[in-house]
This record gives sequence, C-alpha cells and structure tokens, in this order.
Amino acid sequence: MKSIIIASTSTIHGGSYLDYLLPELQVHFKNCNTLLFIPFARPGGISHEQYTNTVSQAFEKINIKVKGIHEFEDAITAINNAEGIFTGGGNTFLLVTQLYKNNIMTVLAEAVKNGTPYLGTSAGSNICGLSMQTTNDMPIIYPPSFQTLGLIPFNLNPHYLDPDSQSKHMGETRETRIKEFHAFNTLPVLGLREGSWLDVKGNQIVLKGNLSARLFRQNQEPEELAPQTELSYVQ
Amino acid sequence: MKSIIIASTSTIHGGSYLDYLLPELQVHFKNCNTLLFIPFARPGGISHEQYTNTVSQAFEKINIKVKGIHEFEDAITAINNAEGIFTGGGNTFLLVTQLYKNNIMTVLAEAVKNGTPYLGTSAGSNICGLSMQTTNDMPIIYPPSFQTLGLIPFNLNPHYLDPDSQSKHMGETRETRIKEFHAFNTLPVLGLREGSWLDVKGNQIVLKGNLSARLFRQNQEPEELAPQTELSYVQ
Repeated sequence: MKSIIIASTSTIHGGSYLDYLLPELQVHFKNCNTLLFIPFARPGGISHEQYTNTVSQAFEKINIKVKGIHEFEDAITAINNAEGIFTGGGNTFLLVTQLYKNNIMTVLAEAVKNGTPYLGTSAGSNICGLSMQTTNDMPIIYPPSFQTLGLIPFNLNPHYLDPDSQSKHMGETRETRIKEFHAFNTLPVLGLREGSWLDVKGNQIVLKGNLSARLFRQNQEPEELAPQTELSYVQ
Repeated sequence: MKSIIIASTSTIHGGSYLDYLLPELQVHFKNCNTLLFIPFARPGGISHEQYTNTVSQAFEKINIKVKGIHEFEDAITAINNAEGIFTGGGNTFLLVTQLYKNNIMTVLAEAVKNGTPYLGTSAGSNICGLSMQTTNDMPIIYPPSFQTLGLIPFNLNPHYLDPDSQSKHMGETRETRIKEFHAFNTLPVLGLREGSWLDVKGNQIVLKGNLSARLFRQNQEPEELAPQTELSYVQ
C-alpha cells in the first residue's frame, strides 16, 4: 500500500530543517532504521555530500540513519533495497534530469507504489505529480522529459504563494502561471502552501497542516480546500 | 547593423501597455510603417488575435500598423519581409516551442542580425540571450531545445526582483535560482529590473532606464551596473 508524505516545503519560516514535520515523520518511517536520500535537486547548487549531511542531522533526532543515493554503486539496487526514501527540494529540472540519467524514474515510482514509505519536499514533492510542469524552478538544465512519478492523479505547485495586492511587480502571479498551464493542459493543479502536506495511504489523499490549499482546474474558478479534505476525487 | 530594444517588461506599475517605451519606440521604428508581431507567448493564455489587438492599439499612438505572424500564410516569408519585429511577453516555454515548430528560430535570429529593428519585452527579451534557461516562467509545454536567438553574448533575467527581507516565504529568491543556474552554466546573467531595457546598436549594448541592473557571473559576487553602462564586455 502506498505510504507517502508530500510536503510543500522542508522548512517553515523561523524553523529549522524538517523540524515542523518530525513528529509526523517519526510515525511515517516507524519501521525504518535507515533512509535512502536522493539529493539530486541540490538547492543553491550545494553538493550531494553537503545536502546529505544536512538531512542526516535532521533525521538523527528521530534515530534514523541516512545514506545518500550517490554513495551506492548501483542506484537501482539502492532504491529496491531501501526501507524508506526521501527526495529533498532544490531545482526540479536538475532532479528530473538526474532521475532519468540514472534510469530510476520508473524504478522509484514502482518502489513507492509497492509500499516503500516516501517523503518528498518541494522539488521532491513536485515529482509526485504526473508532470513537473507546475514547478516554480528555473530551467537550469534540459531534462529528457517533463513526465514524473505519477503517484497521485494531479499536479502540484509547492510553495504556493497568494498574489500580493501591495506589490508593484508586474511579473506573473502564481495564479496567472497556472492559468497559462491550463491553456494547454487538463490536469488539475493543487497549490500547496508552506506548512501543508498531503498524506497518502493507498488511494486516500488527505490535506494536512493548518492551512487551506488552492485547487486549480481548467476553465474553472480556483477553489479553497480546508485541511483534512480527502482529495482522491481530484483527477 | 543590429538594432534591438530588449525590455524587462511591457508595462510598468500604474502605466498602460508599452506607454513608458513609446518615445523610444518612435525613434527605434522610425523607418517602419508596419510591424510584424509575434504573439506566441500568449500571456495568461490569451489568443493570438486578442494579443495582437492589444499591441495594435499601443502602436497606433505612434502611427505604426501591426500584423500578427499568425495572419501570414508563411512565417518565414513574414519575417524576411518585415520592416520591424516585436516579440511580446508571456510564457517563454510556449514562445520557444512555437518558434521551433514554425522553423523560425534561426530565421528570426538572422533577420535581426542583418538589421531588421527588433523589440522584445519579457519572454520576447529572454529569447535574445543564448538560452531561455534564466526565464521565470512555468514549463507549461516541452520545447525541443532551450537554445534561443543569441543576439547578445549573455543571458537575461527579465522582471528581476530583489529579495524581500520582510518575506516569510521560503521558496527560492531570484538570486538563489540564478546561483543554481551557475552551478552548471558559465554564461553571465543580467537581472533586468522592470523599467530597464538594453539598447543594442551593432556590437554596442547600453543599459537604459533609471534603474541599475544586477550582473551575475559564475563563482563571483553579483555586481550592480549603473544606467548607461556599456555592456558588450560582458561575455
């Protein structure tokens, strides 16, 4: 049975890395002594080693050992043998490129569909949707495809940001960008605010955290969904 | 001789479409009775017709007739016969996809290099760099390549936005995103604030408007460049 946490962000304002999620993660990964970490998204360009260190320190607090996928000789075996898997945030274009280059996009999807507990934050959450086409990231590298894991039947926009009515900036709002997506794509998009996450158990998808999420559908007005809403109907 | 205006935005806060640039455009397009408009970026998903209407109304004020490239039977001939060309903003992924699909990426570059006066705003400016990899836009469609016109020897980030020190948002700042680009790419990136534009005459590239621009280079501290700086040394 699928068991997935899909978080908008790793870190909330004023908090430290993963802190707000640790109680949840302790339950989510209760059967794991070790965690396989996928550091490919390299936030701010940091190395796989640096990134894995940060993650190790956070999971040490709940007594879980972390090993980066770059430390294994064979990435496919690493995924198939993992007790639990975490894909961290950073740049989604880079993450997706590396997943394809290492031939593990499908392998990862299969492992998670078969029940390996998974955590994604930010870019690592983006790839849980059907495509990475609603990422906020810069296209710093050209991926072989925009298709991603398809663990849920809609797309995600992590770090969802409401329009700032005081702003004098003329660049597109997040809502406008998602509207542009819907000029060409029918997939629903869930704007997940920082501090929200989806809890997936089998086919059930529940919105967690204290904030509402914003659901965008092609040719429809966006809709605010309250915490605890069950989302498997969205497709 | 190349004659290009590369503007960060079409519209500044409180202004109407292209208003702030019209005095400049009157000079830039002084030998043009008609302008070829490329509406492919479709901001907010509007149609080619709607977009071309908006542009026509703005250029009517300086007595220039506008025709959209979608109105021509042959896009290549339209570009080669154009007195002047304007590519408007919107979604850069869509714009680049359409330029490739219509086989006019190279044709457009050649026409502008050979002296057809060109105006780009936002996405239409992004494509003046060597690649579209420093766009802010959402990847709503998968382009055949990220390579663009290469009219200047560096990349652009239009609508450049300084980090907001009051913000509680944890998504990446523009500066962090460009730093991620520089983890994999050596090209300099010019962050062009709204209200700024580059005036290109042959090999000379001059920063115009009242604001400074922010220059990012791999492994270097960003640098503020004053208005009127000549930028052809940046490569």
